[in-house]
Amino acid sequence: MDITLSQAAEIIKSSDNIIITAHINPDGDAIGSLLALAIYIKDCGKNVTCILDDDIPEKFNFMPNISLIQKPSNIIKSDLLIVLDSSDIERIGKVAQMVQAPILNIDHHISNIKFADYLYLDADAAATGEIIFELLESQKCKFNKDIATCLYTAIATDCGFFRYANTSASTMRIAAKLIEAGVSPNMISEKIEKKSLENMRALIKALESLEFFLDNKVGVLSITEDILNICDNTEGFIDFPRVIDGVEIAILFKCVQDNLCRVSMRSKSVDVSSIAKIFNGGGHKRAAGCSILLPINEAKKLLIDTIAKQMKNGATDV
Amino acid sequence: MDITLSQAAEIIKSSDNIIITAHINPDGDAIGSLLALAIYIKDCGKNVTCILDDDIPEKFNFMPNISLIQKPSNIIKSDLLIVLDSSDIERIGKVAQMVQAPILNIDHHISNIKFADYLYLDADAAATGEIIFELLESQKCKFNKDIATCLYTAIATDCGFFRYANTSASTMRIAAKLIEAGVSPNMISEKIEKKSLENMRALIKALESLEFFLDNKVGVLSITEDILNICDNTEGFIDFPRVIDGVEIAILFKCVQDNLCRVSMRSKSVDVSSIAKIFNGGGHKRAAGCSILLPINEAKKLLIDTIAKQMKNGATDV
Repeated sequence: MDITLSQAAEIIKSSDNIIITAHINPDGDAIGSLLALAIYIKDCGKNVTCILDDDIPEKFNFMPNISLIQKPSNIIKSDLLIVLDSSDIERIGKVAQMVQAPILNIDHHISNIKFADYLYLDADAAATGEIIFELLESQKCKFNKDIATCLYTAIATDCGFFRYANTSASTMRIAAKLIEAGVSPNMISEKIEKKSLENMRALIKALESLEFFLDNKVGVLSITEDILNICDNTEGFIDFPRVIDGVEIAILFKCVQDNLCRVSMRSKSVDVSSIAKIFNGGGHKRAAGCSILLPINEAKKLLIDTIAKQMKNGATDV
Repeated sequence: MDITLSQAAEIIKSSDNIIITAHINPDGDAIGSLLALAIYIKDCGKNVTCILDDDIPEKFNFMPNISLIQKPSNIIKSDLLIVLDSSDIERIGKVAQMVQAPILNIDHHISNIKFADYLYLDADAAATGEIIFELLESQKCKFNKDIATCLYTAIATDCGFFRYANTSASTMRIAAKLIEAGVSPNMISEKIEKKSLENMRALIKALESLEFFLDNKVGVLSITEDILNICDNTEGFIDFPRVIDGVEIAILFKCVQDNLCRVSMRSKSVDVSSIAKIFNGGGHKRAAGCSILLPINEAKKLLIDTIAKQMKNGATDV
């Protein structure tokens, strides 16, 4: 059932034992929204349990109360399960089976499949963190430094530190209020942008693989097994071909098995979701992905040939 | 003479023929502040000439009215010369000799040497663009998309897209108003972050030179002649060693002649200005630079040895 933000606040108010979760493969928005809401509900004198069915990436260790987040172990009953930043029940992993409670889903993904008992969805919000900010502000919450740090991290990471198209005037005004509540923008960006030595070594080797196709309109990185052996985190690597002048489509091939490549695509003006669909993948016009059951060099040739044909037909113009 | 913002506005109002300039080696703040103020003054029906004694980096070509900016050619008289974002008259190059007019200096550098007839200095502003925003707002300027785009570029580039320590709540609120005036944050970040193919190739070769010293606390990039032959723009390269976990000091050595290296240093917790001073350089605690009259390998050894001694003495703790 679709509900309003004040109805969501009422549901939380009327519950004493609350479990909060967010999606697996958690990002800054999932973790930051979860922790901010947990700190607030705890301060209201309620029982809060934070459960997430995945490891927390080390770079988020600086976040206040991060140790509150535990993995699901036993089946538990509760008054309410709040599911944050998740458009589908499958995104919360085992938590779906382990918690017996009505579900309140708070999300900003337009693709939300409306699985919950109660849904508050705001697809215009740059991050679920923006919605949590508005929820807490509507309840006259005093934003202390801990809550502000969690919400700022949630928002800043989901809008690429205010560089993506989802950054709105409202995003900026919320950030202003969070800075006034004690956030250090530089501290958060330093923590989030920190790279391990292994990750940097993997990036350098990945950049050495940079190739261009179709009159330099397509820039490709190939993540072979030897690179994944150094570090398997390739987050952000695709931005390197993406920012090159003249590159319309940036592609990252990740060789996950001898005959299986995961492919990520980013584009400036071409609809890459239509290309991903040919290989049973999906995504958005400017960011899409698929898997190709071939060794990396054959996968590369097949995908580039497909893109060449699509571009020639003009079938990929956004 | 130190003046207030409203006095600065009065001086501009009482002048009919105005020349605006900014510092050589111009960045987004210099160019954006200059263009925004020029568009506003032009809209007030005055004569404006934009002069800058340097080339405009290509990445700023997207900025509205960029073609208004010309290099100084003849000696000209005027009612007023507005010098933006410059702490010292030497920073405006030949413009100082070519223009005969009283000088109004608007700046945010704490190091300003107070060279001008009239100075409005706000060292708390993240960018001169913030001051220009406030000046125009105080004059009830209607921020059209062109002015807003110039000011947003000025502010965003000087605070590292809201990631540096100078980012304040006020910075964010100004950004919010500029977005409401029509700015696309993603369009501006895409234009600014765009890299030429040569620049990317130079970066990749520079990253291959990455070395570590002093228990991996010092990360070093060496920009040799062959890299500079590919592309001599190394802006941002030093951020790669800087973001590595455990690196306290990031250093970039640039081999500008056989026996001359330019050295840039960035630190997280060590005072690198005290190290730069030993080599007659200067800067801030966290960002400093110097020149060393030695071939790159000897310069590297000498600087690392000096840092080791300083760190051992604890003389470099901030």
